[in-house]
Amino acid sequence: MELKKNEQIDDLQINDLKIIQNKDGFCFGIDAVLLSNFARIKKGQTAVDLGTGTGIIPILMAGKSNAKKVIGIEIQEEVASMAKRSVILNNMEDKVEILNQDLVNIDKVLGVHKYDVVTSNPPYMHKNGLINENDKKAISRHEIKCNLEDVMKSASRLLKYNGKFFMINRVIRLADIIILGRKYNLEPKRIRFVHPKKDKAPNLLLIQFTKDAKPELKMEDPLYVYNEDNTYTQQINKIYSSEKIGVI
Amino acid sequence: MELKKNEQIDDLQINDLKIIQNKDGFCFGIDAVLLSNFARIKKGQTAVDLGTGTGIIPILMAGKSNAKKVIGIEIQEEVASMAKRSVILNNMEDKVEILNQDLVNIDKVLGVHKYDVVTSNPPYMHKNGLINENDKKAISRHEIKCNLEDVMKSASRLLKYNGKFFMINRVIRLADIIILGRKYNLEPKRIRFVHPKKDKAPNLLLIQFTKDAKPELKMEDPLYVYNEDNTYTQQINKIYSSEKIGVI
Repeated sequence: MELKKNEQIDDLQINDLKIIQNKDGFCFGIDAVLLSNFARIKKGQTAVDLGTGTGIIPILMAGKSNAKKVIGIEIQEEVASMAKRSVILNNMEDKVEILNQDLVNIDKVLGVHKYDVVTSNPPYMHKNGLINENDKKAISRHEIKCNLEDVMKSASRLLKYNGKFFMINRVIRLADIIILGRKYNLEPKRIRFVHPKKDKAPNLLLIQFTKDAKPELKMEDPLYVYNEDNTYTQQINKIYSSEKIGVI
Repeated sequence: MELKKNEQIDDLQINDLKIIQNKDGFCFGIDAVLLSNFARIKKGQTAVDLGTGTGIIPILMAGKSNAKKVIGIEIQEEVASMAKRSVILNNMEDKVEILNQDLVNIDKVLGVHKYDVVTSNPPYMHKNGLINENDKKAISRHEIKCNLEDVMKSASRLLKYNGKFFMINRVIRLADIIILGRKYNLEPKRIRFVHPKKDKAPNLLLIQFTKDAKPELKMEDPLYVYNEDNTYTQQINKIYSSEKIGVI
């Protein structure tokens, strides 16, 4: 596998999966692993990952489930190229497709109401004046190329009736997430809060919406990331080492 | 103090506060104590408690703060009578007023946009066909006389610009709570989830809205009610024994 400057291959330590990352760019974090595991995809289903970055989420989901296909959408050409090579590296060309596209209006490329599952680990931060809008890391982290509403609108357009949208985001966005969900017929059905430690406020939330569903929200047990001594909790170790998604 | 049939006086174990309760009716639970403590009221401010029941929230808030006045609204005549006698029992006639009124359109009685603080521990449960609509306990627990929207609409009508609304409710209502908040210009600013135990999903949430505020939600540290051995946690004991509201 040919690597470009500053790229390296990292072993995902599970099911022999590997990922190419750029040391100077945005490297996948625990968020992508948690989201992949929180998601549910049934045998033969098709999913779209919005803002896929290195392709970590499609690769984990395809590698740990019987999904028919997972399509990753990435606007940055260099990043999409890296993700495409990671797909080849994992021999997943038949199960994962990376498209170098803008997620805004992606239904015009992929078609409306055709997909069973959409996932997204979108940029968390509001755009602000201090950031370099051409910086790859900044594009992955800040709402430069798309904002939360773009992501949720596209998810809704892509999903079939009763399709599922899985997202990870910061808890400070909770109100916006729920209000935009209602706007785009995405009803929150499961929430799992992620706490850095026990006794600490949650900083992230994992949320599942179901398209066109009735309101009925299930709150899942909290996920604690670190023990008091700053090692990973057993919950996190179990997620990292799980051979299938959906293990809690 | 004259007691009616089935009534008893319970000592609140703090600041010499007492409450009259009907053994066959709805007795105050931990929810009211948690809400009183989660609420913030400054010296000289005026508050309204919607659906006050036994008056537990106004009595705790008035007894543990320098509020000028706390007005409790209760639709059930017998229950309001009990609350009024509890106010007298605590010598709080100058600080707490109980009105036997419907909280729906209560701003027509109390005036609009005049209050600093509104609190509510509203009925949690949806109305359903199995309940006796004349049963006092059922009225306290189910949305028979008012629903969540009535409560939030009245809170919004009563509050001044930048006034605060504090509520406790079930987490399954989270999406409705946030969507109704946006509808009535009540922006969620603080949320504290209440978990029965560590490692268990939260079942209740304490939420503070600020009227006409900008979106910015702060998630507070989780509140765990029981230890593994089913005794109250130190957090709960501290709240029960705190001499002022706002202690966490």
